[in-house]
Amino acid sequence: MKADETRRKIVIAADQLFYEQGFEKASFADIARVVEISRGNFYYHFKTKDDVLAAVIEHRLDERKAMLRHWEQQEDNPANRIKSFINILIANQTKIMAFGCPVGTLCSELAKLDHALKPEAAGLFTLFAEWLEEQFVELGHSGQASDLAMHLLMRSQGVASLANTFQDGDFVRREVEAMYQWLDNQLSTHRPN
Amino acid sequence: MKADETRRKIVIAADQLFYEQGFEKASFADIARVVEISRGNFYYHFKTKDDVLAAVIEHRLDERKAMLRHWEQQEDNPANRIKSFINILIANQTKIMAFGCPVGTLCSELAKLDHALKPEAAGLFTLFAEWLEEQFVELGHSGQASDLAMHLLMRSQGVASLANTFQDGDFVRREVEAMYQWLDNQLSTHRPN
Repeated sequence: MKADETRRKIVIAADQLFYEQGFEKASFADIARVVEISRGNFYYHFKTKDDVLAAVIEHRLDERKAMLRHWEQQEDNPANRIKSFINILIANQTKIMAFGCPVGTLCSELAKLDHALKPEAAGLFTLFAEWLEEQFVELGHSGQASDLAMHLLMRSQGVASLANTFQDGDFVRREVEAMYQWLDNQLSTHRPN
Repeated sequence: MKADETRRKIVIAADQLFYEQGFEKASFADIARVVEISRGNFYYHFKTKDDVLAAVIEHRLDERKAMLRHWEQQEDNPANRIKSFINILIANQTKIMAFGCPVGTLCSELAKLDHALKPEAAGLFTLFAEWLEEQFVELGHSGQASDLAMHLLMRSQGVASLANTFQDGDFVRREVEAMYQWLDNQLSTHRPN
């Protein structure tokens, strides 16, 4: 394996382990075991677990940015783009039920650890918040676009949290429908409810 | 210190450490240091950290049940009781901003650890869900009481999650107002939105 290919494999393995087990629980040894490299090779790329975390956050940002660009290219209508965001709860339902929202659970864990990379992880939320805000601006909600974006992000987080605890697919579908309905109400009334 | 007094102090210290640092991070040694007891005295009460966790969950359940009973005694009107629930986000805002929701973050962490006490921790959510459901039944929403309860619990979780990440008091106040408004809409229309 070439060096940058190895680095990439470490980041992808760490991304998955941090998501599925939590950052604190997943160890250097766990990650090295998945990638099947020696500790020496690992240390060549990353000196500390915090270095790995920084690379994982950067990787997640890149992936999310690519996803948002893809939605923009697929859909001219900002309302449909917002529906793509809401639909993450259905598309990723199995993983969310097992491990929660990857962004929300990482931010929550880093807050408790009072970790230096808290602001970087929060940047993942900010990416979605600002993108949603842009869509609401395009829909003519300039004055309230930021509040509407945060409201939708809040609902998405709440659904992910309870889906993780209760594993209830009916609850997820019901709340996704309610979010679509809420969005339609915004489009027709220009008032948040 | 008498034995049961020591046990109680251990549980209260562990409750706080599990909340503020996370269950995985907080160690036996950390808890013993707070309570100022020897490891030997600690082991007399609890053999494993999982035993401590079981006692912490039981303690949290007792505390929440006492709080719900208190709200019931203070308020005859189920709508005002529900408002007491919503108002947790304001009353505990400082702690929620620092460490998230104690119930949601514990359930999320135990899901990632695939911990045997996941169902016990989920019981904390169930306690609130069933209590809220009872209030909606009293308000005449028998058919949808369970869905309305889960919707409100979802919003409370979502607000706690983003409050923890963004530390934005305006966002919390705005969403609490929106939850009051949502509740008023339920009371007047008998339809969820």
